[in-house]
Amino acid sequence: MGDEATAFVPGHITGFFSAHPDDDPTKAGSRGAGVTLTDGVEVAVERVPEGTESTVVLDGEETDIEPVSTVLETLGVSARVEASSELPLGAGFGVSGATALGTALAANRVFDRKLSFNELVTVAHGAEVQAGTGLGDVVAQARGGVPIRLEPGCPQVNKLDAIPARARVEYVTFGELSTSEVLSGDTQRLTDVGTEALSKLVEEPTLLSFMYASRAFARETGLLTEQVARTIGDVTDANGQASMAMLGNTVFALGTGLSDAGYDPDVCATHPAGAMLK
Amino acid sequence: MGDEATAFVPGHITGFFSAHPDDDPTKAGSRGAGVTLTDGVEVAVERVPEGTESTVVLDGEETDIEPVSTVLETLGVSARVEASSELPLGAGFGVSGATALGTALAANRVFDRKLSFNELVTVAHGAEVQAGTGLGDVVAQARGGVPIRLEPGCPQVNKLDAIPARARVEYVTFGELSTSEVLSGDTQRLTDVGTEALSKLVEEPTLLSFMYASRAFARETGLLTEQVARTIGDVTDANGQASMAMLGNTVFALGTGLSDAGYDPDVCATHPAGAMLK
Repeated sequence: MGDEATAFVPGHITGFFSAHPDDDPTKAGSRGAGVTLTDGVEVAVERVPEGTESTVVLDGEETDIEPVSTVLETLGVSARVEASSELPLGAGFGVSGATALGTALAANRVFDRKLSFNELVTVAHGAEVQAGTGLGDVVAQARGGVPIRLEPGCPQVNKLDAIPARARVEYVTFGELSTSEVLSGDTQRLTDVGTEALSKLVEEPTLLSFMYASRAFARETGLLTEQVARTIGDVTDANGQASMAMLGNTVFALGTGLSDAGYDPDVCATHPAGAMLK
Repeated sequence: MGDEATAFVPGHITGFFSAHPDDDPTKAGSRGAGVTLTDGVEVAVERVPEGTESTVVLDGEETDIEPVSTVLETLGVSARVEASSELPLGAGFGVSGATALGTALAANRVFDRKLSFNELVTVAHGAEVQAGTGLGDVVAQARGGVPIRLEPGCPQVNKLDAIPARARVEYVTFGELSTSEVLSGDTQRLTDVGTEALSKLVEEPTLLSFMYASRAFARETGLLTEQVARTIGDVTDANGQASMAMLGNTVFALGTGLSDAGYDPDVCATHPAGAMLK
């Protein structure tokens, strides 16, 4: 308990996905697969005097992250949330989901809400889906590793597996791409291609299959931006494995893929654990 | 790939449980709750020439751990397995389950078996249940943290939640207690008391509730040994929280419970991540 608690939530890059809307935000979500990252978001939640409004600060700047406000409202608390992210917002790293989930974990502790881990994940997942900022990041970030989302939704209804592997991960970002814009458009094509990618990965759950499936998904859905396509090509030419972060103007590679291709990437690794209190 | 791979699997102390036998060992298991530990088992698997028999070495001594042999047979491989454990075998830390799960993860990598994480957990869980050495350690060790086993069995059928907390954990061991002897006896009383403990914990999934439920379980099942009961009493007198490891002649405490009571315990902490390749 006490007046402050801090949680760490790993970043998450989705390689491919299919969207599964539902009127109930805890049942809506996505199937797909991705990598959780040692680069992530640290979220400190501090009790504020009753009657005071909640504030959210990201990397020193007061801001509004809709799923974070929703999490605080759902838990019925007023707090100061201070998040510091090693990853950019809006570039396909699940920063909004991480901040929402970290807020849920830390607020549960500060305000002694006595919710279970799954219940907190459900609160954050539902908030993220309602805000339209993500469909699968929260449940992946709750698990850690290299999660495969076999069935969509919160932990009460979903089904997760994982690729039993670790890897160094490199990434470069060329700017933002609006998740909510893509997700609010026609997602049927995405879903058909994503479902195909998932069935291939389930047949052979290895990192190499994941990268193949992700590249096929990026190509066939037409989501590739020009700069992302060129960078992935450069990594392929250097015998590396890279693909596009869904959804961000970002390329990620395994091992030294981007370095070998002459880029100056950020470097991290897959994160063995899911979201945790510090 | 390569000729050798190493996995780390956290130890696991069960606080209370109910047994759920089934003819299918992947469906059999236990409900209950426990703490995974930063003290655990490191398992190195090395390829041996075809036709050579598998060997298992634990802390420098060649030994026979039935679930480990079963895992190697299930994966269809011959290997040298070298395990080093920070925890004693047969004292309620899930060392056999950890060794089986570590073997599955590392062998999958060395022999490029392309199984998923859940499939490897299923192989190790089934092997452990068949050997009668444990019912719930493997699935808890695969998850990490402070797992609540809501439904028994392998990941395809079980249901897990967790207490969203971390803690320092202290423990002292007074010798062995045979898991298979207790589990092969009449488990109806255990199961009634364990089910009651679980429903209390689910109502309030906190570490304190877990310790209360665990102590009630140890008392009401009659599993408490004299020395364990005395030690738990000493910790209570020093205003600490302790209970008995199921199944071992071992007392574990949160925070500095055992130290405060004048014992010289081993010290570790809850392990945020589940089993992982190194």
